[in-house]
Amino acid sequence: MLVTATGFSQTKDYRVVFDLTSRDSVNQQAIIREIGLIKGANPDAKLEVVIYGQGLDMAVKGRSGQQGAVEKLIADDKASFKVCAMTMKRNNIDKDQLVPGVEVVPDGIYEIISKQREGWGYIKVAH
Amino acid sequence: MLVTATGFSQTKDYRVVFDLTSRDSVNQQAIIREIGLIKGANPDAKLEVVIYGQGLDMAVKGRSGQQGAVEKLIADDKASFKVCAMTMKRNNIDKDQLVPGVEVVPDGIYEIISKQREGWGYIKVAH
Amino acid sequence: MLVTATGFSQTKDYRVVFDLTSRDSVNQQAIIREIGLIKGANPDAKLEVVIYGQGLDMAVKGRSGQQGAVEKLIADDKASFKVCAMTMKRNNIDKDQLVPGVEVVPDGIYEIISKQREGWGYIKVAH
Repeated sequence: MLVTATGFSQTKDYRVVFDLTSRDSVNQQAIIREIGLIKGANPDAKLEVVIYGQGLDMAVKGRSGQQGAVEKLIADDKASFKVCAMTMKRNNIDKDQLVPGVEVVPDGIYEIISKQREGWGYIKVAH
Repeated sequence: MLVTATGFSQTKDYRVVFDLTSRDSVNQQAIIREIGLIKGANPDAKLEVVIYGQGLDMAVKGRSGQQGAVEKLIADDKASFKVCAMTMKRNNIDKDQLVPGVEVVPDGIYEIISKQREGWGYIKVAH
Repeated sequence: MLVTATGFSQTKDYRVVFDLTSRDSVNQQAIIREIGLIKGANPDAKLEVVIYGQGLDMAVKGRSGQQGAVEKLIADDKASFKVCAMTMKRNNIDKDQLVPGVEVVPDGIYEIISKQREGWGYIKVAH
């Protein structure tokens, strides 16, 4: 087993950027669940969810089926959520319509490939 | 903001290989739109779309809902489109049935992982 | 052409981790077919399929539409299949319910990003 339940696991290099372009509730629930499990076993993991394209509503107040969960993960410093400004513009969403704590990046795809280049793992959220 | 509208942005290392295995028009429209946006802000970006599996029709004349857009992106040197020869063979598609400008690679997956190894970013097109 | 049909191709660095979170039979058939094609042309390729989330049933006896194919790929040493222990636990699946030869990893996402960090290519199986 590569992972132990205690201290040792915290020394792992656990950095992941998740690519979310789905409005499918199964995908949106999966990423919330996965973040909880990862951080439970690896408190020092760095996790970032980049939202663009069809995924936008997950980041928008009153449209996100996971709004409470997203807010709590951000408030508890378990993950960051970043939404693409170009996707927001195309859908006429302003920054003040976002779920509290969600950040804006100018270009979601560039955010993802920048993280990849820095050595973060990459997971596409889809099923 | 990481991106400016002018010269500075062109110095970024913006290289992406897109993995397209979808016949879903939402995905096929998304990749066309994303390439336009990326190249608008980053004229020196290198973008490649690798098509295999269920994505094949996007590369086939008379079957691609994005045929005009694909042709124009290639003609304007904004992106390259490469289709997997093994997928073509399995579907009895010859090279002369491809949208003009689309290239053939012997193995779509190997093309993708080769680009990854060269430091290109990777984006799976799905939603 | 980057690939030849004979010896030369075997010297390529062909290592891929496939990320399968789909119960869709098109995706599950695709990964079986792709492994066969890759190994046919590149006998030394290292291929690993990491199964988690909605993909679980592909690894479970009596639930996998690809059970015979998975067993044969493993027995012939063509690919390894690894399933996430957290996904198994959540679905009340024990190790003895897995398709023979399927291995268990404590955390499917960590398995994937570890392979990425070791220089393996990454392919999300989706369409």
